Amino acid sequence: MTVRLLESLTTTGALDDAFSDAALLSAMLRFEAALARAAAGAGLVPISVADAIAAIPVDAFDPAALARGARTSGTIATAFVEALTARIQTAAPAAAPFVHLGATSQDVVDTALVLCLTRACAIIARDHGRLAAALRRLSSQHRETLMLARTLLQPAAPTTFGLTAAGWFAATSRSFAALSAAAREAFVVQFGGAAGTLAALGPHGLAVARELARELELGCPDAPWHAHRERMGALVASCGVYTGSLGKIARDVALLMQFEVAEAAEPGGGSSAMPHKRNPGGCAVVLAAATRMPGLVSAFLSGMVQEHARAVGGWQAEASTVASAVQACGSAVAAAADLIEGLSIDPDRMRRNMESTRGVVFAERAMGLLAPSMGREAARRAIAAAVDAASAGDATFGAALRSNPAAAAALSANLSSLDVPEAFLGSAEAFRRRLLGEDHE
Amino acid sequence: MTVRLLESLTTTGALDDAFSDAALLSAMLRFEAALARAAAGAGLVPISVADAIAAIPVDAFDPAALARGARTSGTIATAFVEALTARIQTAAPAAAPFVHLGATSQDVVDTALVLCLTRACAIIARDHGRLAAALRRLSSQHRETLMLARTLLQPAAPTTFGLTAAGWFAATSRSFAALSAAAREAFVVQFGGAAGTLAALGPHGLAVARELARELELGCPDAPWHAHRERMGALVASCGVYTGSLGKIARDVALLMQFEVAEAAEPGGGSSAMPHKRNPGGCAVVLAAATRMPGLVSAFLSGMVQEHARAVGGWQAEASTVASAVQACGSAVAAAADLIEGLSIDPDRMRRNMESTRGVVFAERAMGLLAPSMGREAARRAIAAAVDAASAGDATFGAALRSNPAAAAALSANLSSLDVPEAFLGSAEAFRRRLLGEDHE
Amino acid sequence: MTVRLLESLTTTGALDDAFSDAALLSAMLRFEAALARAAAGAGLVPISVADAIAAIPVDAFDPAALARGARTSGTIATAFVEALTARIQTAAPAAAPFVHLGATSQDVVDTALVLCLTRACAIIARDHGRLAAALRRLSSQHRETLMLARTLLQPAAPTTFGLTAAGWFAATSRSFAALSAAAREAFVVQFGGAAGTLAALGPHGLAVARELARELELGCPDAPWHAHRERMGALVASCGVYTGSLGKIARDVALLMQFEVAEAAEPGGGSSAMPHKRNPGGCAVVLAAATRMPGLVSAFLSGMVQEHARAVGGWQAEASTVASAVQACGSAVAAAADLIEGLSIDPDRMRRNMESTRGVVFAERAMGLLAPSMGREAARRAIAAAVDAASAGDATFGAALRSNPAAAAALSANLSSLDVPEAFLGSAEAFRRRLLGEDHE
Amino acid sequence: MTVRLLESLTTTGALDDAFSDAALLSAMLRFEAALARAAAGAGLVPISVADAIAAIPVDAFDPAALARGARTSGTIATAFVEALTARIQTAAPAAAPFVHLGATSQDVVDTALVLCLTRACAIIARDHGRLAAALRRLSSQHRETLMLARTLLQPAAPTTFGLTAAGWFAATSRSFAALSAAAREAFVVQFGGAAGTLAALGPHGLAVARELARELELGCPDAPWHAHRERMGALVASCGVYTGSLGKIARDVALLMQFEVAEAAEPGGGSSAMPHKRNPGGCAVVLAAATRMPGLVSAFLSGMVQEHARAVGGWQAEASTVASAVQACGSAVAAAADLIEGLSIDPDRMRRNMESTRGVVFAERAMGLLAPSMGREAARRAIAAAVDAASAGDATFGAALRSNPAAAAALSANLSSLDVPEAFLGSAEAFRRRLLGEDHE
Repeated sequence: MTVRLLESLTTTGALDDAFSDAALLSAMLRFEAALARAAAGAGLVPISVADAIAAIPVDAFDPAALARGARTSGTIATAFVEALTARIQTAAPAAAPFVHLGATSQDVVDTALVLCLTRACAIIARDHGRLAAALRRLSSQHRETLMLARTLLQPAAPTTFGLTAAGWFAATSRSFAALSAAAREAFVVQFGGAAGTLAALGPHGLAVARELARELELGCPDAPWHAHRERMGALVASCGVYTGSLGKIARDVALLMQFEVAEAAEPGGGSSAMPHKRNPGGCAVVLAAATRMPGLVSAFLSGMVQEHARAVGGWQAEASTVASAVQACGSAVAAAADLIEGLSIDPDRMRRNMESTRGVVFAERAMGLLAPSMGREAARRAIAAAVDAASAGDATFGAALRSNPAAAAALSANLSSLDVPEAFLGSAEAFRRRLLGEDHE
Repeated sequence: MTVRLLESLTTTGALDDAFSDAALLSAMLRFEAALARAAAGAGLVPISVADAIAAIPVDAFDPAALARGARTSGTIATAFVEALTARIQTAAPAAAPFVHLGATSQDVVDTALVLCLTRACAIIARDHGRLAAALRRLSSQHRETLMLARTLLQPAAPTTFGLTAAGWFAATSRSFAALSAAAREAFVVQFGGAAGTLAALGPHGLAVARELARELELGCPDAPWHAHRERMGALVASCGVYTGSLGKIARDVALLMQFEVAEAAEPGGGSSAMPHKRNPGGCAVVLAAATRMPGLVSAFLSGMVQEHARAVGGWQAEASTVASAVQACGSAVAAAADLIEGLSIDPDRMRRNMESTRGVVFAERAMGLLAPSMGREAARRAIAAAVDAASAGDATFGAALRSNPAAAAALSANLSSLDVPEAFLGSAEAFRRRLLGEDHE
Repeated sequence: MTVRLLESLTTTGALDDAFSDAALLSAMLRFEAALARAAAGAGLVPISVADAIAAIPVDAFDPAALARGARTSGTIATAFVEALTARIQTAAPAAAPFVHLGATSQDVVDTALVLCLTRACAIIARDHGRLAAALRRLSSQHRETLMLARTLLQPAAPTTFGLTAAGWFAATSRSFAALSAAAREAFVVQFGGAAGTLAALGPHGLAVARELARELELGCPDAPWHAHRERMGALVASCGVYTGSLGKIARDVALLMQFEVAEAAEPGGGSSAMPHKRNPGGCAVVLAAATRMPGLVSAFLSGMVQEHARAVGGWQAEASTVASAVQACGSAVAAAADLIEGLSIDPDRMRRNMESTRGVVFAERAMGLLAPSMGREAARRAIAAAVDAASAGDATFGAALRSNPAAAAALSANLSSLDVPEAFLGSAEAFRRRLLGEDHE
Repeated sequence: MTVRLLESLTTTGALDDAFSDAALLSAMLRFEAALARAAAGAGLVPISVADAIAAIPVDAFDPAALARGARTSGTIATAFVEALTARIQTAAPAAAPFVHLGATSQDVVDTALVLCLTRACAIIARDHGRLAAALRRLSSQHRETLMLARTLLQPAAPTTFGLTAAGWFAATSRSFAALSAAAREAFVVQFGGAAGTLAALGPHGLAVARELARELELGCPDAPWHAHRERMGALVASCGVYTGSLGKIARDVALLMQFEVAEAAEPGGGSSAMPHKRNPGGCAVVLAAATRMPGLVSAFLSGMVQEHARAVGGWQAEASTVASAVQACGSAVAAAADLIEGLSIDPDRMRRNMESTRGVVFAERAMGLLAPSMGREAARRAIAAAVDAASAGDATFGAALRSNPAAAAALSANLSSLDVPEAFLGSAEAFRRRLLGEDHE
């Protein structure tokens, strides 16, 4: 890990590697070498330039010196290009004048960031795959597992854990699909030169840009995007939405894992003080990311108001924001995949928790059954009395209602099934299958 | 206008109407009537229910009373449904038990908000159309209008205003397309009942949901989305990205309109104190929206971590956030369309500003021309001397460089064209046409 | 209420009034009249000017027209001053040239906003007073009420509800004190004229400014603060911190009110679908404010980067942001005061929930008692076995540990008190009294 | 530097050190040793425990292993305490049972973060001192340097650069004072044990806490603040406000440094593509921080809604947020101090820019002088004509107005001084001195 301990929850080992100095410098060198090759293809520079650049190892650069340079020029690229040129000047003097040909600082930094992002997004995709598979499995296993639906943290009515898990699956699948689409749009080369016209390349700008993109396996945009950041903004924002969906899962699991609820448990971790504790550590990691992410998205959006052809401030705020947002997202999905893969479900406790409401969760059902024949007011009174009886522990809601003759008469065919949860699941299974994409008749 | 004066820059008259109490209550009534019709179609309720609801005027509801109710139950729907039922009880007692059948508070409020959003987004689309047309026109008119590209607020190299405007066009077009796509996804009915299973409708839930969606001309999602807000989140986030793109235009125009730059001017407005002032009032409106928007996006994302089947807090924070975000976006694009439609450009001043740099903006070009033959160090020294001469006012950069024999020899064929901006535009026109979609060979 | 139904949870009736058009226009008129009086005091204008202004009713202004004007000039003040002057021109022509003397648009709008804020903050102070009193009362009543402290939503160890309530009290008291201090700093007049020099008043600027402040019962700052917004920023940020403290209370209450926990209940509200539901509606209102607030704070901070002597965008974004933030804060504290005043506590359930852990919450205590004599590893093994026994339901943790001879010997004097919660409260009562300010020996 | 190149603009070398792994681990060890000393003072543990801990070097810990541990337990403390105990078990077995006595994970991590913050804030204070001194000096030097006040980026009226710099001074001084006050409040020890009651210390909790605080030179709060984060929130928020004030300076300088304005210049840096460029690199660093900061503040505030006695997610999101915010703030003030210390001002250009408005900036003054005698309408017409003449280049505004007989007559005594900027500075110098604290008569 290269990130600091204080930030250890903000990334994973793999994502940390993707944004390490070595990864960034390697990507910057790839840009410069690919540019030299592309320019050579257009006959603008000798092919030896690319070879000379490709021969330079990442550790030829002193990160601390580049970082210091950034504080006066606003970017690490100025010092990087100087160091690169000096190195080429020594190793292959004839190649030196052609280094970085036609490019500007932002070209190499933006493109290198995009290259780091392609790697990071591939990691995220793998973890999302694990998560999605585990959720689909959970949902199928528990298609008939009854549980309380809770609204505003209060018991509402029966549902299934299968539907709950399917809801998690579908929300994260939709928001991951949006993230992937945004990534595809954003994975384009940046190459515009000083003014975004590639003027230094004369008539060859577009051809070199295309070849550069091909070399780097990135898209070639219609034009340079130095001060137009909506593609990157859409990527960061979609990370935000996706992480929000992950946070919802973690919040639910942490709530279900409460000692007093105990319907689900993630593997979690221990405590430094309390031997008996099993903490939802994975939920904490996901929720921490979901807490930090909205601020990162807003930081990116605030920086979009960029001046003219290159911003003063807005652009310079971006790299760390984008890297933080993508790592927060990746940290969240890695933790979510782990916790869902390891999630244990207690169907018996789910049923007992439902039963402990003494049937009041069937009050809505009763209202639907009674109101048409008894009238709304009379139905309301009968139900309120039964709710009170159940709350007082005198009888279950169903028994209390059945003991009311008018209500019993009105219930007629539903008399016995009134408080059978399996009879009050409505479209739960249909919804579940639709959410999993298993039932689009 | 129903919004307060203090918020007068946060919306437009048309958008204000779209989120007015009348619009919201009307949408809520549309939901209830459509639900009754859909339920009647499934044979669950008499058709008279829908007729009874449809006969109720919007002003039958007391907004202040509904607002008070919201502060105890967390939603205006509870008091709304009570008032609606009471009204039906009087007008058509037999219909009363069937009002709001199978639905929960969130169903009517979420769907009504979506209905308001469809109207608001249509308004935004119209204003975007005006903006896009005006930008395309500007870009074409000024395809040959030379101007300084500026980076970090300093002169960089020549470009054209046509390319600048095309960049504005393409960025807003891309981000508006994303907004439209997100809106299409988000414009789905909410209908899940108490627990998101439509249990009260027995086996008819899905059919009623589909018919309800058809009645309201909305999409029918795979399942209710009570606590899954990623569709709405994607819409709000895309408003954020789009508004960021608009803010970039406004920032640029306000900078170009500075007295000392004076290359462009928007219609703007006056000052209460200074008779001579012409202020970029339109830019101020756009930039105000771009300043507020990131916080609104982050508020939405923070609220996505919603508990179980209905949140306590996260959901209740949403309606005002969504309405504010969409209105901020709409306020920005309306102002942007106005200001771009009314934008005046001063090509002469653009050229004079470029000339006032005394040619130093050709330094990059000179480096590209001199370095290969003179070597990088010698070229750098020659150019630095010419930059100094130009800055001191002794000669233009080009003249100073040409007076250096070694440089003059190295320039050879480019001797005279060195500081001709038209000769240093590279791919500007190709990029411009690609950005406008006029040149995808 | 003048705010829209969609925003009904974002304010209260009283706060809505404080930011209504009538309140704002009245404050703007107060500014203009006070300015005229102050200028008259310096002999700059006839005293009749102030009288003429004071005679104008609020409804002389057409809010919709002012709002339209704001969209071209970026502020409602330009149209307001024009309308005011026109009115004076008719009523008292000789006074007309002296209207708004020396002032600029921002002077009247900023000062009027400050005047609205003074009223709003007084409302917040009253509700905070209610909240603080109720929390202090709760804490005292329940100084001996045992409850589980929960960490990461898992049972940790015993504490008292008295200490819990005292923690809520102290956190909100500290953050309210900071809010009050920020408000005192921010409640200063804005008066600088076109350029912030009060040039139009010649040598009388400072004297008029002081008198103006005196008239309005506001502070007089060292200088105008047109583009320096740190006082307002500190006020908004302190609203954010305070609302965060309130949100923590609401989150705790909502969790304690879960059916499965049931240790506390707020008055709350009902559901439109489920007759049995009692929802934490007050918590939802507080948490909705806490969800929205961070974005409002960030919007303000983003707007602080204001250009020169008056910003284009940053300033224009402020009024609605400040008003929204203060109302969100006020909405939260009003709901929090209501819910705490109406909070019911169930000490028996608190004890039963603790007992239902079968004593594992004493594991930390056991470790502290056993490790010194048994050694850390042996103690850990003994405790783990007792935790397992308790979890399996075979015995309580204490009984299981006591049945281990080595552990029993090591416990010696603490043998019987090991799992007596009253014996494991440490400094809970001392902390409680300190938090309430009752025990600063 | 330990931070990554991608984040090189987000901190400085000194601040990076303050939050390095070495700094954090050292602070954690200091906590554990101080705790052992404090507990020994109360007779709870042998004094040898503290000595054993104090003998452990920072590099005894493997940061990568601690980071991995954090991803399951949500904190690095669990693995840290285990590693520490294992080490003591080997080195001084008798001391091992007393390690971390009475403390919980959050105690050591929160306190260690506070210790890192004390160091970081001292660095910020030094840089603020440099900035304040440089601004005071600039303001005094330029007390008579005339410049254009600009509003909405348009020329407004004359002011002095001395007043401008004094405004920067006062705003940053006020917001730094608030930051310092918040830091003093926040620099308190965290020590509460598992449940926040210090139960494991029996009756000695408070005494040990006080001694622990004394050892660490931190304050001792009324009670542990595990889930009450308003002190830290106030610190982060005040960093946000302060950074906003710094951003305003940087925005102004970058605007003044524009080639077309050229009234000020910071040392800045070069470009990798354009030999002629001198970029406002320092402004970019400050503005990048000001762009990122509001999102960090909002992330902190969002996390304040923490569950019960220790949060799941909210707390775990904090450490990196606080560290990022403080470093962003420190990066901004370091860059601001550098740029203001190196700022060059061009008084001649300031005057020339003012003159190039051809006197229209005296229109407000003219209105004030003419309206009382000519009447508002006639004055407005005369002034508009003169503005038009000046804009057309026919005459200066003053000359045009003087050539209007009615206006000339009305101007009378002010005829010649109408367009003398020195005569239209109002209270500029008085305000300047008040802002610097030099003139509180």
